[in-house]
Amino acid sequence: MNTNTAEKPGTAQIISPEELLNHWQGHRALTRRVIEAFPEEKFFNYSIGGMRTFAEMTMELLAIATPGLREIVSGSTSELKEHFDHGNSKAKMLSLWDESTEEINRLWNQLKPNRFHETIKAFGAYEGTVQSSILYFIDNEIHHRGQGYVYLRSLGIEPPAFWER
Amino acid sequence: MNTNTAEKPGTAQIISPEELLNHWQGHRALTRRVIEAFPEEKFFNYSIGGMRTFAEMTMELLAIATPGLREIVSGSTSELKEHFDHGNSKAKMLSLWDESTEEINRLWNQLKPNRFHETIKAFGAYEGTVQSSILYFIDNEIHHRGQGYVYLRSLGIEPPAFWER
Repeated sequence: MNTNTAEKPGTAQIISPEELLNHWQGHRALTRRVIEAFPEEKFFNYSIGGMRTFAEMTMELLAIATPGLREIVSGSTSELKEHFDHGNSKAKMLSLWDESTEEINRLWNQLKPNRFHETIKAFGAYEGTVQSSILYFIDNEIHHRGQGYVYLRSLGIEPPAFWER
Repeated sequence: MNTNTAEKPGTAQIISPEELLNHWQGHRALTRRVIEAFPEEKFFNYSIGGMRTFAEMTMELLAIATPGLREIVSGSTSELKEHFDHGNSKAKMLSLWDESTEEINRLWNQLKPNRFHETIKAFGAYEGTVQSSILYFIDNEIHHRGQGYVYLRSLGIEPPAFWER
């Protein structure tokens, strides 16, 4: 028997759970640098075209990542809570971001590979599989962070390099 | 022997090649709708903060997706070519987009699951694995499309829903 699963199509992971976690956390590290790049006042007050501030988008990202993964791991759903008292402090947001980073790592260890195709209803509302939900969390972050890049550029600030994670 | 690989951690795909293709093409369908949402003149001329127009970003996306996947499948690299004569025609860009969609589907059928962890140098310059390169192609599209959303909002145009693919 050939034990090198990498050579057997259909059995080797094309993306392993560890790679997906690193992919996610790499994006989260970049988003953290984007938050850092904003002048504090602009982070909470600046927007374009009637859109949300980057602080509001960041609150959404915090509300989705860890709570969403916690739901997947625990199986008990809760409502999406996108608003909390940030006290207009970037330091507080960054500290919540870092707590979230640690918590995602802890939760990920509890997520078994055979669960990625289970059907779930994220936040009691959004149906998908575990894998499609996690990809959505990541995509949604990339999407809003890309918007943050425009905010920064329009403020004359060079954003962090997209390809660095 | 248990033949239900979905119950054996480490052997079932957490994301299958078919799911990854659908994920990619779902994003590409959304980007197509974003291109469509731009008034033709704004697509080619409008930008914020000294950034590129959405037409220029679209050319980059076209230069990466199919040529990048073709490289992976064929093993022969070529340079990244982000500029071509678009004739200021959205119809031409959309037609190139649609050709690209078909070509990605054709190429994907030739990409074996055991190749996703091969190390490659995309466009002769960007080292990674096949899986990390494909994820990068997708992420880069989400990133620039998010910027297109800000352009549209600042023009008073409602962008297509992010969650529809």
